[in-house]
Amino acid sequence: MSILVVGSIALDDVETPYGKANDSIGGSALYFGAAASFFSPVNVVGVIGEDFNLDNLTFLKARNVDLSGTSVEKGKTFRWGGRYHLNVNKRDTLYTELNVFENFKPTIPDHYRNDPFIFLANIDPELQLDVLNQMDKPRLSVLDTMNFWINRKKDALMALVKKVDVMILNDEELFELTEVHNIYRAANILLNEGLRALVVKKGEHGALLVDNDGYFIVPAFPVEKVVDPTGAGDSFAGGFLGYLSSCDEINDQNLRKAIVYGTVVASFTVEDFSYNRLKNIQREDLDKRIERIRDMTTF
Amino acid sequence: MSILVVGSIALDDVETPYGKANDSIGGSALYFGAAASFFSPVNVVGVIGEDFNLDNLTFLKARNVDLSGTSVEKGKTFRWGGRYHLNVNKRDTLYTELNVFENFKPTIPDHYRNDPFIFLANIDPELQLDVLNQMDKPRLSVLDTMNFWINRKKDALMALVKKVDVMILNDEELFELTEVHNIYRAANILLNEGLRALVVKKGEHGALLVDNDGYFIVPAFPVEKVVDPTGAGDSFAGGFLGYLSSCDEINDQNLRKAIVYGTVVASFTVEDFSYNRLKNIQREDLDKRIERIRDMTTF
Repeated sequence: MSILVVGSIALDDVETPYGKANDSIGGSALYFGAAASFFSPVNVVGVIGEDFNLDNLTFLKARNVDLSGTSVEKGKTFRWGGRYHLNVNKRDTLYTELNVFENFKPTIPDHYRNDPFIFLANIDPELQLDVLNQMDKPRLSVLDTMNFWINRKKDALMALVKKVDVMILNDEELFELTEVHNIYRAANILLNEGLRALVVKKGEHGALLVDNDGYFIVPAFPVEKVVDPTGAGDSFAGGFLGYLSSCDEINDQNLRKAIVYGTVVASFTVEDFSYNRLKNIQREDLDKRIERIRDMTTF
Repeated sequence: MSILVVGSIALDDVETPYGKANDSIGGSALYFGAAASFFSPVNVVGVIGEDFNLDNLTFLKARNVDLSGTSVEKGKTFRWGGRYHLNVNKRDTLYTELNVFENFKPTIPDHYRNDPFIFLANIDPELQLDVLNQMDKPRLSVLDTMNFWINRKKDALMALVKKVDVMILNDEELFELTEVHNIYRAANILLNEGLRALVVKKGEHGALLVDNDGYFIVPAFPVEKVVDPTGAGDSFAGGFLGYLSSCDEINDQNLRKAIVYGTVVASFTVEDFSYNRLKNIQREDLDKRIERIRDMTTF
C-alpha cells in the first residue's frame, strides 16, 4: 500500500573522513523514498530548483517512487554543506541555503490524499499539520522533527503529537521536547499525549520503541566503515514505515520488526555517499542483516 | 568457585539530583564483591584506613565475601567526592584523596592464589601484572582500567592485554587505548592481541561482547530513577564474572548471558546510594530482570 512522504529534496556537499561528494542527492524525502521503496510504492511531495538534474532520479522512478507531486520552481534547489569529524557522530554544518525550499507550501495532489501511510519528514510543524489536514484518513501517520523546531515552535509540535500515530525522534530531541532527561519517563509523557508509539533513534547506539505494550530495544547494525552518515535517520524512517506498509496489522510485534528494518536500511545507507548503497542492494540483503541482528541479540 | 578481586575500597561523598550520601561505602572491590557474591564466594584484596568502620561490612561477610586479604593501614581510607549532573552520565570529581591507597602494593594471601576467577579492578597496570603473576593459574582473568592509566601507562596495559582472558572497557576508553574510533575495528585489535573476549560498556546504551564467535549486544535495563550511578561499572563486572563462575563452561553462550547479568546487577546498583540496593534483592530478582530484557530484545 502506498506511502506519502512530504519533505526536503536537497543537493549536499558532504565531506567525511572517507572522502567528499559534491551535489550529492539528498534531502529527507528522497532518503525516505529510497528506503521505503523496498517495500511499497512511495509518493513524494517536495520542491526542487531549476538546477536539479531530473535524470538523477531514474533509479527512484524504477523503484516505484512517484515524483509527480514534486514541483520545479524558479531558482536553486535546497543546498546543505557539512563536514563530519573522525568521530562521525559529530558534524559541522558549513552552510544551509534554503533556496526554493524557503517558500515550500506543500499541496497534496488529489491522487495522493487517500494514501494509507504518511511520513511527515522534518519541516515546519505548521506545514506538517497543514499536510495532515489535507489527507483523507491515513491508517498510520509518522512524524519527524528536529531541535530547530523544538526550540522555536514547541506548541505547534505538541499539537501535532496529539494528531499523529507515531513520532520518531533522537534522544537529544526527546529530552528537549519533554524537558525530562530520562528516556522512559520522557517517552511516557508523549504516549500520554496520544501517540500510539514513540521511536527513539540513538545513532550508533541503536533505537528504541515505546508503546503501550512496553519497550523494545535494538542495537545499531555494526558497520565497520561509516562513509557518510547523511540520511541515516530518514532512511531509518523509510525502512520502518516501509515495512509496516507491508503488514496486515499494525501491532507491537510488527512495530518491533519495523524498527529492525529501519536499523538495517540505515546501516546500508551510511556505507556510501548519498543513497548510492541502496541502489545495489535488494530486499533479501535487508533480510540477511535482520537475521544477523537477531543472532547478535539472542541469549 | 571462588573469585578473587583486587581493587579499591573507598568512602565516597556523593551528590546526585536525588540526594546526598556522605561516607558512602564504595570502591571497585566492594561494588564488585557485592555483585559477584550473588553467585559465588568472593575474596577481596584491598586496603582501608583506621577510619573505616568494619561493622559496615557485615552484610558482605554474610554474603560470603571474605575480607581477610584486606589490610588496615595507619591513616585514612581512600576518599572520593563527586557530584552528578541532572544528566547523570556527567559528573564532576570534587576531590580524590588516595590516603592509604597511595601505597597499595597488593600481596595475595596464599589461600587465594589458586582462585579460579580473578578480577583485576582498576589500579595501576603494573600492580595488576604483579597480582596476576602471584596467581597459580586462574581459569579466567578479567581486566578493568580507566583513561588515567591509558594515558599514562599504555605500554604496561597492552602487555597485560596479552596475558588476561577478558578485558572490560567503556567505549571512550577503547577508542583511547586503540586510537581507532570504531568499536568493532578497535575491538578486533585487542582480540588480535590475544584477548578471548572484550566487553565494552556503553552506560545507558548497554554493553557489547566481542569474541571469536562474533558480536553480542544487550541494552541497559530501563531504570526510571537513577539515584546514584557510582559503582555501576564494577557491579557490572561482578555480575559478569559472578555468573561465569557458576557455569560449567566458558563459551560464547555463557559469556552472552554473563553480560546480561552484569547489566541487570548494575541496574539495581544505580537505584540507590552505595550498594544499598543490592542488600535487599535476591538472585531471583536478577532473574526476573533477565527475562524482562529478553522480552525487550526479542522480535
